Amino acid sequence: MTQTKSTNITWHEGDISRDERWKALNCTGATMWFTGLSGSGKSTVASALEQTLVNRGINSYRLDGDNIRHGLNKNLGFSAEDRTENIRRIGEVAKLFADAGSVCLTSFISPYRSDRDLCRALHHESGIRFIEVFVDTPLDVCEERDPKGLYKKARAGEIKGFTGIDDPYEAPHNAELVIRTAERSVDECVEDCISYLEAQGILS
Amino acid sequence: MTQTKSTNITWHEGDISRDERWKALNCTGATMWFTGLSGSGKSTVASALEQTLVNRGINSYRLDGDNIRHGLNKNLGFSAEDRTENIRRIGEVAKLFADAGSVCLTSFISPYRSDRDLCRALHHESGIRFIEVFVDTPLDVCEERDPKGLYKKARAGEIKGFTGIDDPYEAPHNAELVIRTAERSVDECVEDCISYLEAQGILS
Repeated sequence: MTQTKSTNITWHEGDISRDERWKALNCTGATMWFTGLSGSGKSTVASALEQTLVNRGINSYRLDGDNIRHGLNKNLGFSAEDRTENIRRIGEVAKLFADAGSVCLTSFISPYRSDRDLCRALHHESGIRFIEVFVDTPLDVCEERDPKGLYKKARAGEIKGFTGIDDPYEAPHNAELVIRTAERSVDECVEDCISYLEAQGILS
Repeated sequence: MTQTKSTNITWHEGDISRDERWKALNCTGATMWFTGLSGSGKSTVASALEQTLVNRGINSYRLDGDNIRHGLNKNLGFSAEDRTENIRRIGEVAKLFADAGSVCLTSFISPYRSDRDLCRALHHESGIRFIEVFVDTPLDVCEERDPKGLYKKARAGEIKGFTGIDDPYEAPHNAELVIRTAERSVDECVEDCISYLEAQGILS
């Protein structure tokens, strides 16, 4: 599905450059890509971070695996091909948000390194910052939390190909940020993200 | 491709509501959907409008048919099915931008009423405003302009299924706004859009 088919198209330069946009809106766009096991706390941290940023007047928007599947990606299932296409589309949309000046937060398991690397490359080709945030929560902790009861179903064989049980999670090798929700509170994890964004000049 | 395949998903409520977000960011999100023939002036007007809005400090972002095909929709061609999927995906992304508080501008030929109506419905189901802007430029004017030389190729039979030549353009019946670039300058067209947004309370 990722074959390039489009023809008769030309790259359309907008009348306003990214620099002009970001300057006029006093913002710096970037994507923070949260990755980790189901139950690791990706959405909890990303959601709290989003709230913190928005309340500071920062345009931040969260793309969530569960939410986006009801809309943009509702025609994708859970085959290997569809999972890759799922992540690719989200990477492209995150890039658009970041280009628009948003601090875009994505929270998906996104278990495969190659899929995440593709999203990183999409951003870098466009000169947009991509911050991989590894939510590094041990499997036993995630399984203990099991907020949606999915681990239980996976262990019972009711769900096949579940990440961490019978499908691999490929941990990032060089994530920009590692967050340990088993050891730190949500607020502390949010603070770590904010500190990183400030250190990088994305937040002033 | 629009069949719903997703299973084992739950709707994930963010910690911040749309109202809270828009209030904190002092914005009102909406989608302005520009539709019209190739060469009608959609992208020219949308681009000038985007610039005007951003320079006023309004977070506005343009999704452009030509641009998005290099990214999100690069795996789609020009078959009837792919054209419909192209518009559907853009409608979903526009909805996300509007939800985030942006005045999202889309400029696509989007020739079929059913495709545009689907995008309208997607927005309305989410309680987000969808403003269809019909860029009503006569075919002969568009063909005279022919900025990309596509009409010439279509007349020569080098492009098949070209809107307005050998594929229909279904004009909107009840567009919120009609713009006539053959009679008015780009600045005047932008003013019409701004006036509409002000009258609707989307701009203050």
